[in-house]
Amino acid sequence: MLPGWVYEKCPDVSASHRESARARQDQLTKPRGALGRIETLAIDLAALQHTERPRAARVPIIVFAGDHGIAARGVSAYPQEVTIAMMANFARGGAAISVLARELGSHLEVVDAGTLAEVPMPGIVTDKPRRGSRDFSRQTALEAADLAFAFDCGKRAVARAVSSEPDMLILGEMGIGNTTSAAAIAAALLRTSADMIAGNGTGVDAEGRARKARAIDAAIALHGLAPGSSPERVLCAVGGLEIAAIAGAIIAAARQRIPVLVDGFIVSVAALAASRVNPSCRPYLIFSHRSAEQGHRLVLDALEARPLLDLDLRLGEGSGAALALPILRLACALHNGMATFAEAAVPDRKG
Amino acid sequence: MLPGWVYEKCPDVSASHRESARARQDQLTKPRGALGRIETLAIDLAALQHTERPRAARVPIIVFAGDHGIAARGVSAYPQEVTIAMMANFARGGAAISVLARELGSHLEVVDAGTLAEVPMPGIVTDKPRRGSRDFSRQTALEAADLAFAFDCGKRAVARAVSSEPDMLILGEMGIGNTTSAAAIAAALLRTSADMIAGNGTGVDAEGRARKARAIDAAIALHGLAPGSSPERVLCAVGGLEIAAIAGAIIAAARQRIPVLVDGFIVSVAALAASRVNPSCRPYLIFSHRSAEQGHRLVLDALEARPLLDLDLRLGEGSGAALALPILRLACALHNGMATFAEAAVPDRKG
Repeated sequence: MLPGWVYEKCPDVSASHRESARARQDQLTKPRGALGRIETLAIDLAALQHTERPRAARVPIIVFAGDHGIAARGVSAYPQEVTIAMMANFARGGAAISVLARELGSHLEVVDAGTLAEVPMPGIVTDKPRRGSRDFSRQTALEAADLAFAFDCGKRAVARAVSSEPDMLILGEMGIGNTTSAAAIAAALLRTSADMIAGNGTGVDAEGRARKARAIDAAIALHGLAPGSSPERVLCAVGGLEIAAIAGAIIAAARQRIPVLVDGFIVSVAALAASRVNPSCRPYLIFSHRSAEQGHRLVLDALEARPLLDLDLRLGEGSGAALALPILRLACALHNGMATFAEAAVPDRKG
Repeated sequence: MLPGWVYEKCPDVSASHRESARARQDQLTKPRGALGRIETLAIDLAALQHTERPRAARVPIIVFAGDHGIAARGVSAYPQEVTIAMMANFARGGAAISVLARELGSHLEVVDAGTLAEVPMPGIVTDKPRRGSRDFSRQTALEAADLAFAFDCGKRAVARAVSSEPDMLILGEMGIGNTTSAAAIAAALLRTSADMIAGNGTGVDAEGRARKARAIDAAIALHGLAPGSSPERVLCAVGGLEIAAIAGAIIAAARQRIPVLVDGFIVSVAALAASRVNPSCRPYLIFSHRSAEQGHRLVLDALEARPLLDLDLRLGEGSGAALALPILRLACALHNGMATFAEAAVPDRKG
């Protein structure tokens, strides 16, 4: 159903670079392990990047936007035209991710992977098979060809980013209604009830949340998504174009040995789908934060992920990943820049 | 027992700037509250700094070093000479905090607030009343005059930093044996058993931890630190010069309306002591991380603090605070740099 490259095995992580990095950490002038997860981050990056000196300097951000037919069911606190208005805000520099990209020195690319926009917008890459997904409470959200297009859209975005030799990628999303689509994908893939997964999104109240959960359960029944349904089938039934594009981008990045700093709930659901489609991409995922969205914890548990931050974020756009990037940069700086006990003539531990 | 300035009231936080900042956050192009603690950080900073535009650009780091007589009781995995060797490593740029200061563009000052060093060391400010505290398993660690000197040492360090008009301060520590002193202070102030507080420090094993806990319980009995003992009395009995200097620096900074980004267990214990001595300094404390040191959670709970990071750090030096600084900087950038709904012509929520 998906293009062949999606299923090709991603490169192995380097066990020898992992061992060298671990050995170096143990020689740095600090008690062994005293920098906790900062040490393991540097070691993981060294292994992923096949290097002695891990880097997180060049980290482009790609935000994929899409519209969702399910938005017609009143699942969002915001009107649907916000998707397009926010794309323009990204491009003009006023959105959270725009500010973060500037501060971090990261290139920001915004991809219209499937919004309702009728004409290409300035400063936005338009790469979509259709305008918006269909309302999955009535029909399948995407045709198989739409889904394949979206995965290729993600691959094309990674190919554009690769020209700048990125050390890592941040992927973000925007789309009114996309927490409902993501919750439906997660409920189907994790075989759990929508009530466990559906959260308040970017701001619906308790009644709105109940409406989301009912819409999801009804859709899972409507589309016959029995336990064990393939991720491709789930994505067609209840997915979204930007979510599928992110899943494609994750696999495309991993295939080129580029780690991805995963954002919040929606990107994590795309990561779950990607790792169900092609499990060999999983080692390339670094999880930035645990969001305030209630289903995120379940998705992270399923991915055995332990994110870096827990700051009650629920914005999306890649903003949580961007907020975590400085920690990766500092982890690299410490790994590469600290003196060893021998270099500094500091006595190591007793005995 | 302490100099008079220590007890003077710190300035009030600005309620009007807090309200303005909150109102601005609600107009930015994101769902209200969607940036979670990033929003409250910016709002808190605006209130502390009495400004519409909070800043965390200029953040000097001051590391206070001290030696501890209790180290003779085998409470640390490292030999006592590591304190001096690490001071030299700080000054030469090889330690974790040196690397972090460089990456963050922060000025790093190292203060010998009471190590065993016999002569002033290059690149280190020497400002101590004595060489090391006494072994508190046998006698009081500090005389009243030593304690007063240490608080003034902290004040002098803040006065030096103030010349660069800091937006905030990071305070760090170094001292073999100082987790034992900090655990003893915390056990006395929180009226809890040493076993609940004493952790593995920078690397002792289970037996070492038990030895620490026994030494602390014995010292609390020896010095007659009954529940309700004053923080001044506790600091003299089982304190350390660098811990007291940090407590003094916290109060001195708060008196000048400079927020302090609090590091891990030891700086948090100094913050606990400072806020017991002068509760009006408490609003100026921003807690950076929850460490792997087991007593830290109890100290944070007593301070009603909710730190930003939880990364299993247990190094000290101010390293956890330094790792959290970029998050504060990004919180300020978002607060100051995002477009409002009106500016970006993005529709706000329905109804």
